[in-house]
Amino acid sequence: MSTTVCGQNGDIYKDTTCTSSQRAHDLLSRMSWTEKVKQLGGIRQVLGENMSFNKTNFDIFNEAQNGNIGYGNQFNPAIPALQLVNELRENQTASGLGIPYVLVTDSINGIYLFNGTLFPSTLSMASSFNVPLYGEVIASIREECKAIGINWVLSPELDVVTDPRYGRVGETYGEDPYLNGEFGLKYVQTIQEKDENGYRKVAATIKHFVYGWEAGGVNTAHQYGGINHVYNDMLPPFIKTISEGNPASLMVSYASLDRVPMSANKFMLQRVLRDDLEFEGIIMSDAGALNDLAGEFRIAQTSQDAAILAVKAGMQMELSPGEESATQTLVNVTNDAEITALVSNATFKILELKFNLGLFDLPLPSVGNATKVLRAPAHLEAARNISRESIVLLQNDGLLPLQNTSHTVAVLGPYASIIDPGSYAPHSTADKTHGNSLLQSLQHALGSKNIIHEPGVDFLDLTNRTGITSAVTAAKSADLAILSVGSLSVYSSDPLYDKRTDGEFFAHADLGFPGLQQELIDAVLDTGVPTIIVLSGGQAFVLNNSTLRANAILHTFLAGEYTADSVVEILSGQVNPSGKLPISLPQANGAFPVAYNWLPSDNHGGSSGSPIYGSSAWQFPAITIEPPMAFGFGLSYTSFNMSAEVKEVKTEGGDPAFEVSVNVTNTGSVAGKEVVQLYFRQSLSTIELPVKRLVRFAKVGLGAGQSEVVTFVVPQVEMGYYLNMEWTLEKGSYTFYVGSSSKSADLQEWDVTIE
Amino acid sequence: MSTTVCGQNGDIYKDTTCTSSQRAHDLLSRMSWTEKVKQLGGIRQVLGENMSFNKTNFDIFNEAQNGNIGYGNQFNPAIPALQLVNELRENQTASGLGIPYVLVTDSINGIYLFNGTLFPSTLSMASSFNVPLYGEVIASIREECKAIGINWVLSPELDVVTDPRYGRVGETYGEDPYLNGEFGLKYVQTIQEKDENGYRKVAATIKHFVYGWEAGGVNTAHQYGGINHVYNDMLPPFIKTISEGNPASLMVSYASLDRVPMSANKFMLQRVLRDDLEFEGIIMSDAGALNDLAGEFRIAQTSQDAAILAVKAGMQMELSPGEESATQTLVNVTNDAEITALVSNATFKILELKFNLGLFDLPLPSVGNATKVLRAPAHLEAARNISRESIVLLQNDGLLPLQNTSHTVAVLGPYASIIDPGSYAPHSTADKTHGNSLLQSLQHALGSKNIIHEPGVDFLDLTNRTGITSAVTAAKSADLAILSVGSLSVYSSDPLYDKRTDGEFFAHADLGFPGLQQELIDAVLDTGVPTIIVLSGGQAFVLNNSTLRANAILHTFLAGEYTADSVVEILSGQVNPSGKLPISLPQANGAFPVAYNWLPSDNHGGSSGSPIYGSSAWQFPAITIEPPMAFGFGLSYTSFNMSAEVKEVKTEGGDPAFEVSVNVTNTGSVAGKEVVQLYFRQSLSTIELPVKRLVRFAKVGLGAGQSEVVTFVVPQVEMGYYLNMEWTLEKGSYTFYVGSSSKSADLQEWDVTIE
Repeated sequence: MSTTVCGQNGDIYKDTTCTSSQRAHDLLSRMSWTEKVKQLGGIRQVLGENMSFNKTNFDIFNEAQNGNIGYGNQFNPAIPALQLVNELRENQTASGLGIPYVLVTDSINGIYLFNGTLFPSTLSMASSFNVPLYGEVIASIREECKAIGINWVLSPELDVVTDPRYGRVGETYGEDPYLNGEFGLKYVQTIQEKDENGYRKVAATIKHFVYGWEAGGVNTAHQYGGINHVYNDMLPPFIKTISEGNPASLMVSYASLDRVPMSANKFMLQRVLRDDLEFEGIIMSDAGALNDLAGEFRIAQTSQDAAILAVKAGMQMELSPGEESATQTLVNVTNDAEITALVSNATFKILELKFNLGLFDLPLPSVGNATKVLRAPAHLEAARNISRESIVLLQNDGLLPLQNTSHTVAVLGPYASIIDPGSYAPHSTADKTHGNSLLQSLQHALGSKNIIHEPGVDFLDLTNRTGITSAVTAAKSADLAILSVGSLSVYSSDPLYDKRTDGEFFAHADLGFPGLQQELIDAVLDTGVPTIIVLSGGQAFVLNNSTLRANAILHTFLAGEYTADSVVEILSGQVNPSGKLPISLPQANGAFPVAYNWLPSDNHGGSSGSPIYGSSAWQFPAITIEPPMAFGFGLSYTSFNMSAEVKEVKTEGGDPAFEVSVNVTNTGSVAGKEVVQLYFRQSLSTIELPVKRLVRFAKVGLGAGQSEVVTFVVPQVEMGYYLNMEWTLEKGSYTFYVGSSSKSADLQEWDVTIE
Repeated sequence: MSTTVCGQNGDIYKDTTCTSSQRAHDLLSRMSWTEKVKQLGGIRQVLGENMSFNKTNFDIFNEAQNGNIGYGNQFNPAIPALQLVNELRENQTASGLGIPYVLVTDSINGIYLFNGTLFPSTLSMASSFNVPLYGEVIASIREECKAIGINWVLSPELDVVTDPRYGRVGETYGEDPYLNGEFGLKYVQTIQEKDENGYRKVAATIKHFVYGWEAGGVNTAHQYGGINHVYNDMLPPFIKTISEGNPASLMVSYASLDRVPMSANKFMLQRVLRDDLEFEGIIMSDAGALNDLAGEFRIAQTSQDAAILAVKAGMQMELSPGEESATQTLVNVTNDAEITALVSNATFKILELKFNLGLFDLPLPSVGNATKVLRAPAHLEAARNISRESIVLLQNDGLLPLQNTSHTVAVLGPYASIIDPGSYAPHSTADKTHGNSLLQSLQHALGSKNIIHEPGVDFLDLTNRTGITSAVTAAKSADLAILSVGSLSVYSSDPLYDKRTDGEFFAHADLGFPGLQQELIDAVLDTGVPTIIVLSGGQAFVLNNSTLRANAILHTFLAGEYTADSVVEILSGQVNPSGKLPISLPQANGAFPVAYNWLPSDNHGGSSGSPIYGSSAWQFPAITIEPPMAFGFGLSYTSFNMSAEVKEVKTEGGDPAFEVSVNVTNTGSVAGKEVVQLYFRQSLSTIELPVKRLVRFAKVGLGAGQSEVVTFVVPQVEMGYYLNMEWTLEKGSYTFYVGSSSKSADLQEWDVTIE
């Protein structure tokens, strides 16, 4: 029996019997300063529109920043892009030390090239409240990414968002730190799964460290940043994924925190992230963020100064969309021992990850395999299943499910004939190759002859009202109107790009419907024809009293290529809706931040003496702090009853815990799924704490009349909070809340004591 | 020659030759624990509506909390209230040690009883940008307060406000830390002036420590609280008034900062306020705030626990509106040495202030003197003058000043027939004893026969539209329409209380006009009749495109009893408007926070790639971060030209400074006043800094064709900022901006260097 010993087979860095760390150290020792610096940068946009490739530009950039590459334009078809990039990868490893690129791309709804499965956006998947099903989706995404050579994704997005004006809400898991952590952890654990040889399949990037409480909801705006706020409101999903998921990397936010730009925020990157959160992965910049330290924030004079500031704060890698990286200027910084050490260490970490991913050892992905893996039946099935569970039924007067499918249906609204993909989705609104528009799905289900289609209005236009008249005529001549309205979130190459009103770089000062859509809604509802409103877009909308006249309202957010099919299945009752809101919907354009876990002082200022304003947080107009459409809320076609028992138990490790057993019964007449939600509140604490905090949730499927007991075990230590950066559990009274949403009316409560 | 020596005349505390400190120490040594505790509390609401006085209740409260009293209902007439309270004061000093009450009241627009001069609200006075004139007003307020025995006021309100949803904006100086500090300091220096015997006339209370960046604009909501944010955005006016004005007291905010309720925030009250800001005055609670630590924040179980927490954090005095104080429970806390020492010290400070104010030595205020002082001609003149300078002309197509005063005028809108007083104003909307409504002033000026009056709509009602038709008819039959719309800010005893939409306890989720006022505006402007809109209310309004069709728009905020007279003088051209906005007006209901001194990252997120959105901060709708109606903006009937020279000089103390000399010329044909505004920006800094910061301003009056040189000397040290609680001045490039508003288009710039 012979034991293989690392290094016996020649160069350590080429020796697969050595650890990634050993190999990276060996390789690093062979590299010049320039070669090390190059690893920190890369070329994110290799391909332009229509597969265009500018070799001259590529070669110029590649000479100075060649650690990573990205595919670029996300509308390019996967197979030709794979072939071209494979060539670049072969060229790269053929010279010098043969250090491969690592391919890094975004991944919000699937792969970042066309012809993969178009999964729902992150917010839609969070609406499912179904973490195991989400795991199936992420496994599918992982396989599709890997099949086209993507070994590193810029997900998950853990930003906790309570300001609906922010344009990237659709990329997040919503407003709750706990829910975000559960989904984020499942993402990291699934995407980073190891293959049979021990190679990590795909590296995850948790982001944005930290973001979500930006001034005015404006993209990248400054954040105020007290430490209790940061630790309790923003950090929990990062802490969860880091401590339990070991993500390979972390992306730093564009924004500033308490006036210190995050890319140069040594306190946050070192003291908090490294020392306190014990993050060991690679710290990367957002695209172009280092140059912003000079151009925007004015805390650096030049790109080189910016790179020095950032690297000394802890930055280890730079994303460069299509410009010179700031870190490449470090080739000239040879007399700064701190920079030398930090860059060498960063290069080591990047190389180690490349070894971990098998980039030095495994063959390039083949076209044959990619053809088989992309849009594999299991992936499509996973996409369809989570789409079905992600659509949220917000209102239903009994019209749904439709009892009679033989009537004439007026399909109205500008969103009826497109797929609203999401700005990071590799799918154009114009492309019908994959997925159906609502119009198509309805035509398939009901037959084209039963459908009258009138868009009514444009997405953004404010002048042309002629279509409204046609839409009203259509509604009046039909038995039912289905009105699809919303907000566009598309990529810059999309034909509707100039009509988009949501997505990255956007902020909504108005949460109503863009263009003349509200006029269309008003006019159609004025007809009195039974009307279903189908909302589209990765954002919250203000649903005014006119809109709320609709018989039924569904929010699809951005539910992927099966959005329309799922809507039709829900309308007909084939699928019983089970999505729940991962964000609370504000009741007016100024009634935010909005989230179920407000602090007591946020609801204290009301004018209780004035009968007309009641217990409003805002008084003009009178708006309660708990919106009717709050976090965790979503209707079903059946009804559920819950009763619970709470008892003190020990965890397997012997620690004190509460066991909350919830007996859920489907008391209606059809099968359905319900999300059992467990919240708690601490009665007395050292600092102000939220009125409720989600601590467990589970989705259960029950046939009519069926019951099931859902048991949650909550270790008492989980019921603490962060006080000046320290996790603190206090003795005293606590209250558990169990129910079907975060709304007070939907919850039952039990008092317990921690002694 | 004999020298009087303290103590030779018997009891030290009765000896006016002793210092206040000596006398307070002596008195303290004679007091029981219970007597000491009582000094911390008081009875704020002595009188109810219509001079009602509940002696039983008063006696019960007085037994346990008797350091201070307040008049209570602000609509009570001054003289009878003075007589009744004088009796209570006599009773109080007749027993025991004879420690007098100190009378504490709010003072936003003048005295807190009826029949004083009704001055403009704080925000209106800030609109004057005229600090010397403001000093005259505060001297008048001081004399009126003192005449009715008010020796301690709960002003100035130094909250820096950038969220227009907050209902108390009208009580503040607006959005700029520097402007707030200048006005606040003038307030403190003037109100605290010493009389000929060395007694302080009236004690000031700077407040609210700290408030202004509350979640959602909701009254008392939590604040996020990073330390650079707090020091640079919130503290400057406190630092200025403390270091240069020595205010007698400070009121702690109701809200929390970074989740720590301010009333128990030892870091802010000790480390920041005492140690760093070197505040030596009395730290008082807001009304009822200590009990909130238990009832609202849940950081204390009982009132006693709350009092202990607050006193240990630094609280020294408690305002109790009409309830048992929390501090009175400390009578039973006799075994806690820290509490014993802190309460004794607090009592000492309160006694010392009472000696400083002459309360032990001077006679009670006489009815005869009060009758002479209240509404003295000089006070009315000061009120009139500042009202004239506080009204801001926002838009004017040339209609103003009116060339022909002989035409028929339709006076429309619900605000035409009232005075909108402000919630802390001792003036009912129904009372016409002092001041005129706009209708009255116009009738006086133009003759009743030339006026058609139609309110058009109610303040808040959403159903009755019949008046709109009448208003349109009136407008059509007139040569000119004057439309007075706004938002009500009134006291709880006001007959219109249930229609109020602004003031304390309020927050605006909607910054449009309450009720059907917008429909009235639309309908009147649709007539095409020349229309002037007169805005009323201590808040910002969103002026939509329909409203902006008006020929002229003026904002009066809450300009006191001479509001209407001043408007008429401005309309006719007798007075040339010179008010400037102390708050920027947002362009949509979601387009805030709004202030001229945004941080660079707040304007970075725009979608520059999309032609329809330009350089917007918000994209739906497209809204620039600099509003057209920005801080410092306001129109005149004449035009001014400015040219400037910047040179390096030394201050008198020999420190490096910049001297900015601005040559201002009135280039128009009528006399007018202009506010010369000096801003600056640092080019390169350690943390993110605002794009502009006001550093000097001055109001100059110039006849047509006249010129004047305004010289600002800015010591370089003033051009620093707070970095981790340390004032920091950095070498390098800076830019000065000089002009007539904060808007980029209104400014000229000069680069300078600090070496």
